[in-house]
Amino acid sequence: MKAVRLHQYDERPVVEEVAEPEVTGAFDVVVRIGGAGLCRTDLHIVEGQWAAKSNVALPYTLGHENAGWVHAVGPAVQHLRPGEPVILHPLVTCGFCHACRAGDDVHCADSLFPGIDIDGGMAELVKTSARSVVKLPAGVEPASVAALADAGLTAYHAVKKAVPLAYPGSTCVVVGAGGLGHIGIQCLRALSATRIVVLDRNEEALSLTRDWGADETVVVDGSHVERVLELTDGNGAEVVLDFVGERGAERDSWAMTRRAGSDFVIGYGGSVDVPTIDVISTERNLIGNLVGSYNDLVELMVLAADGRVEMLTQTYPLEAVNDAMDDLDAGRLRGRGILVPTASGG
Amino acid sequence: MKAVRLHQYDERPVVEEVAEPEVTGAFDVVVRIGGAGLCRTDLHIVEGQWAAKSNVALPYTLGHENAGWVHAVGPAVQHLRPGEPVILHPLVTCGFCHACRAGDDVHCADSLFPGIDIDGGMAELVKTSARSVVKLPAGVEPASVAALADAGLTAYHAVKKAVPLAYPGSTCVVVGAGGLGHIGIQCLRALSATRIVVLDRNEEALSLTRDWGADETVVVDGSHVERVLELTDGNGAEVVLDFVGERGAERDSWAMTRRAGSDFVIGYGGSVDVPTIDVISTERNLIGNLVGSYNDLVELMVLAADGRVEMLTQTYPLEAVNDAMDDLDAGRLRGRGILVPTASGG
Amino acid sequence: MKAVRLHQYDERPVVEEVAEPEVTGAFDVVVRIGGAGLCRTDLHIVEGQWAAKSNVALPYTLGHENAGWVHAVGPAVQHLRPGEPVILHPLVTCGFCHACRAGDDVHCADSLFPGIDIDGGMAELVKTSARSVVKLPAGVEPASVAALADAGLTAYHAVKKAVPLAYPGSTCVVVGAGGLGHIGIQCLRALSATRIVVLDRNEEALSLTRDWGADETVVVDGSHVERVLELTDGNGAEVVLDFVGERGAERDSWAMTRRAGSDFVIGYGGSVDVPTIDVISTERNLIGNLVGSYNDLVELMVLAADGRVEMLTQTYPLEAVNDAMDDLDAGRLRGRGILVPTASGG
Amino acid sequence: MKAVRLHQYDERPVVEEVAEPEVTGAFDVVVRIGGAGLCRTDLHIVEGQWAAKSNVALPYTLGHENAGWVHAVGPAVQHLRPGEPVILHPLVTCGFCHACRAGDDVHCADSLFPGIDIDGGMAELVKTSARSVVKLPAGVEPASVAALADAGLTAYHAVKKAVPLAYPGSTCVVVGAGGLGHIGIQCLRALSATRIVVLDRNEEALSLTRDWGADETVVVDGSHVERVLELTDGNGAEVVLDFVGERGAERDSWAMTRRAGSDFVIGYGGSVDVPTIDVISTERNLIGNLVGSYNDLVELMVLAADGRVEMLTQTYPLEAVNDAMDDLDAGRLRGRGILVPTASGG
Repeated sequence: MKAVRLHQYDERPVVEEVAEPEVTGAFDVVVRIGGAGLCRTDLHIVEGQWAAKSNVALPYTLGHENAGWVHAVGPAVQHLRPGEPVILHPLVTCGFCHACRAGDDVHCADSLFPGIDIDGGMAELVKTSARSVVKLPAGVEPASVAALADAGLTAYHAVKKAVPLAYPGSTCVVVGAGGLGHIGIQCLRALSATRIVVLDRNEEALSLTRDWGADETVVVDGSHVERVLELTDGNGAEVVLDFVGERGAERDSWAMTRRAGSDFVIGYGGSVDVPTIDVISTERNLIGNLVGSYNDLVELMVLAADGRVEMLTQTYPLEAVNDAMDDLDAGRLRGRGILVPTASGG
Repeated sequence: MKAVRLHQYDERPVVEEVAEPEVTGAFDVVVRIGGAGLCRTDLHIVEGQWAAKSNVALPYTLGHENAGWVHAVGPAVQHLRPGEPVILHPLVTCGFCHACRAGDDVHCADSLFPGIDIDGGMAELVKTSARSVVKLPAGVEPASVAALADAGLTAYHAVKKAVPLAYPGSTCVVVGAGGLGHIGIQCLRALSATRIVVLDRNEEALSLTRDWGADETVVVDGSHVERVLELTDGNGAEVVLDFVGERGAERDSWAMTRRAGSDFVIGYGGSVDVPTIDVISTERNLIGNLVGSYNDLVELMVLAADGRVEMLTQTYPLEAVNDAMDDLDAGRLRGRGILVPTASGG
Repeated sequence: MKAVRLHQYDERPVVEEVAEPEVTGAFDVVVRIGGAGLCRTDLHIVEGQWAAKSNVALPYTLGHENAGWVHAVGPAVQHLRPGEPVILHPLVTCGFCHACRAGDDVHCADSLFPGIDIDGGMAELVKTSARSVVKLPAGVEPASVAALADAGLTAYHAVKKAVPLAYPGSTCVVVGAGGLGHIGIQCLRALSATRIVVLDRNEEALSLTRDWGADETVVVDGSHVERVLELTDGNGAEVVLDFVGERGAERDSWAMTRRAGSDFVIGYGGSVDVPTIDVISTERNLIGNLVGSYNDLVELMVLAADGRVEMLTQTYPLEAVNDAMDDLDAGRLRGRGILVPTASGG
Repeated sequence: MKAVRLHQYDERPVVEEVAEPEVTGAFDVVVRIGGAGLCRTDLHIVEGQWAAKSNVALPYTLGHENAGWVHAVGPAVQHLRPGEPVILHPLVTCGFCHACRAGDDVHCADSLFPGIDIDGGMAELVKTSARSVVKLPAGVEPASVAALADAGLTAYHAVKKAVPLAYPGSTCVVVGAGGLGHIGIQCLRALSATRIVVLDRNEEALSLTRDWGADETVVVDGSHVERVLELTDGNGAEVVLDFVGERGAERDSWAMTRRAGSDFVIGYGGSVDVPTIDVISTERNLIGNLVGSYNDLVELMVLAADGRVEMLTQTYPLEAVNDAMDDLDAGRLRGRGILVPTASGG
């Protein structure tokens, strides 16, 4: 089959023929890819930024946002049938540790990450475990939701943690109206009646957010923190969702969080540096956020099926992976890039 | 009546005669002091560190940890009678704002702080509001619990927030076995079956903590973070209660917090500086903690009445306030200093 | 001023001149009525069903769903000014007990209930306490929201408790599409993405619920429990909100609740009779629900101001109270009846 | 191997030779029994009361409270090694459904129950799944904890749900000081500082509960509800744990629950019959409780290893199963009966 393979860091991945993955374990599942999301992390992988963390042996296949149809299942898998449309939770988890059993499988003590530390889904087929396979609700096309498997799931997870704090009359500041913010705003609107204030440098991006449910938009121009304080009687917001996490956003997010409020860190790159006197005298919290759980992904698919969450996507054939990467890198890609294997591959 | 008055920053407070406070408002309560706790914050006030924050007009009366007996009540106060033994919540709160109504009176939008920004309780009488008065359970002597009104209440509040995370089989690291840690360990033992690991520089302080409920003790000697990781299979603790918050404790506390765990900042003085990639890739939380609510203080008094929480105290007559301050400053004070007005003052 | 007075049980209330209420306590507030909701409970009061419970001395003024404008305030009230538009929380609460301080003022240990056990708001003026006064957001007319003060607040409170259980993919069954169900459905839609299934005997009432956010409607015709089980793969619903509570609805609601689910009792009149073996073998819960707290009412007003919750009302002059009661009793009243004092009364 | 087999309802089970269970599935685990708890449910099974519910084909092996040592594991099991001491969660769960993934495996959509609907553990060996095997902490003997696998786990689970409601100053009423109540009281003491009031008909049983942590004891003699109301200022308790659930206990438990309180149903046999007006006017809750989750059992083993929970047991050789059943039936059994296979069986 065809697959997008990385042979060497800092070189372009190539599309080449490789052996098809096969079911070997009792709970293995091989999935025919309908769409594999392209993510900025893929660019960072190619650049070698993840080499030390993932320790993956080259060459290997990229792709960690995958959806498609069940192709083959291991002998112990009873609840999945070939042909069923599915989306894949990004991690392969053990199912036995305390975290997996507590509904917190993301913190599994013994997990794998296809596309990061083993072969991923930019290919015709990908191998995962039965524990990672989410059946798609009727009417949801794999390629249209592939990018929700990781980026969208991260946004949903943070929003779900924030919603109990976001009562009617509260304010929730969303920092960053990009891909994650896009999903985050829609999820927040679907699950709460909080006032949503969105911040971004880009006025065009901001203007789109009104349709997704934003109540107020603020241009990041240096006076934005002050503007948010004005909008909140000088207090700041009960909840700040920082989808940027770098270039000052992490500092501003903390400054826009009110007493007893919570600043959710989702984006990354920068550093949070706060005096402990500020932490305790205002009783503010800094909340870490990773990708969501399997059940979170099931819930997000319900929102997608109901039309409450939509993702803008742009499709490329698998062979055009480098064009897609170039477009992403150059800021030419509107929405999320999705790589689709050609049908003849089947 | 006699009162400990601060006339000028950086000069010693004096004990002098002042007019007795009088009931003027409908919900005013004047309390005869049985004991007023002496706190390191009092030293900082004298040094002028709080001058800008509190904006208090000098001279004024110190003392923000107060207990005694009801002396006089305003015309609208129906649930308190002169002579009843009471402890005072440190804040005078409005009772009308969202926070007061949500059980979170510490974040009252319009509060006063006797001993900080108005006259406090190092005196024969202090004036507060009916909303701040907690009746003492039978058998609890005001002077023995006065120091729980602020320091103890802060420790209890943090522990109460941490307990839902501290399931049997989890580890809770307590950083600092001083006054707050002392109360924190006892509260943690009373409310959970978590494994309690206590850290301190002082081996003698550590050895005392076994009686309060500590399961393990670790000397802060440079290898302490490593030692805690060893005790937790390399993972760190589900909960870290940092009662120090400075001189590296704030950095170590974060390092000892496991994936998906929470680092509770209670002490202060230093700074927390963490890369956002660390926050998100481990999904750790940094939790701010202020003093507890009125209901928290009621609960803490139940623990005190049941003998589950005990505070070591050393009593001084009100006139000896400067001796007490010297002892505190020089590290000669074992336990908490309590100033007691002489009976003849009544 | 004019007021609707009940002189004797089982006789019609009369509209007559009475002395205006006056501020006597420090936190008293007198409110000029803009609208007083008429409730089925008022009919029951007239019939004498509440005589033993309320112990109120006749004659007295009816009306427990009140909104209007601040008219006069006691000397200790600083946050309210005459002329401000307000809605009144139905209870006058003490502000000192454990419940009031825990954000659960509905369970105040020492409360009054204007319109039930003291003079209410079917009058030109009503007296309450500053603790019960909620300022209306800009653009919200008192008469349009008066009925949310009790009936709407009860529905909101139950929904708010249910929302954490109503994750995307869950089903919430709403039993009864009348006044409370109407508000309940809108609140549920505003605060969750659960699938809402509404049951009622009346097909016309059901057809309206689609606009409020219902996903499915089921006619109560004897096959309705079976129909709900079909809609839920034979499992029943995670949440059932029983706004009826009598005539079999209470039995059906329990039967439609799935394993580990919760049946919220809101309406009343009937009895729940369940074998303990059924309670434990399925781990279902039966949840009691009373009117909401002060903060709940503030939140509901935000939903009203945002247009997320609307109530159908029909206005009568205060003098026409008996016409309104007749219309309510005869089922001629569409939406909620609101009594409005004539302006000349001012 | 030897096993306790039921050949016909209403006849005594017999101890006979049967084939040893063998690993056939990837995640199968065969455990050598160290002790199998005898439960009143076993008597009911013999009497045929479970015939219709379990639909089990006779003959089969009894025993649903099992502990021992790993004997053999399926090819996919990596975290268990032969010889390790273990206790078995009573259910064999799927690991794939929403409930299993949410940490609520007891409500697994596709579970088996060894000893109830397939062969159980009153034998030398029992077969289960890797998902059901809990490793015992060092120093915990299988036979000493076997009865915690079901009865103890049920008590722990209910207590764990109740603890967030049982703040210092609250009252928790424990109805029934038998096997479950015994464990419940110890768990409650380990995890809270609530005041524990224990009710039982048997004064001797009550006197033992003081050592387990009871603060007050009340004999069930007809005046017990009144006595509990006296102990709680006429209000009733915030939490009632009803370990009896029949013969009037279910009615009394509701009557002893205060406004906004929760009545946890754990025992069964009777019926709860409450008017909906009582449910809503007091906002009380009736909470169902089943056995605990896998993680609950891990936590309970921590409490056992720490000596915080101890179970009184009486050991019988496997062959004496009918003596043990007679003793249980006649009330001669003090503590819990544990059947232990003879070593030669190995």
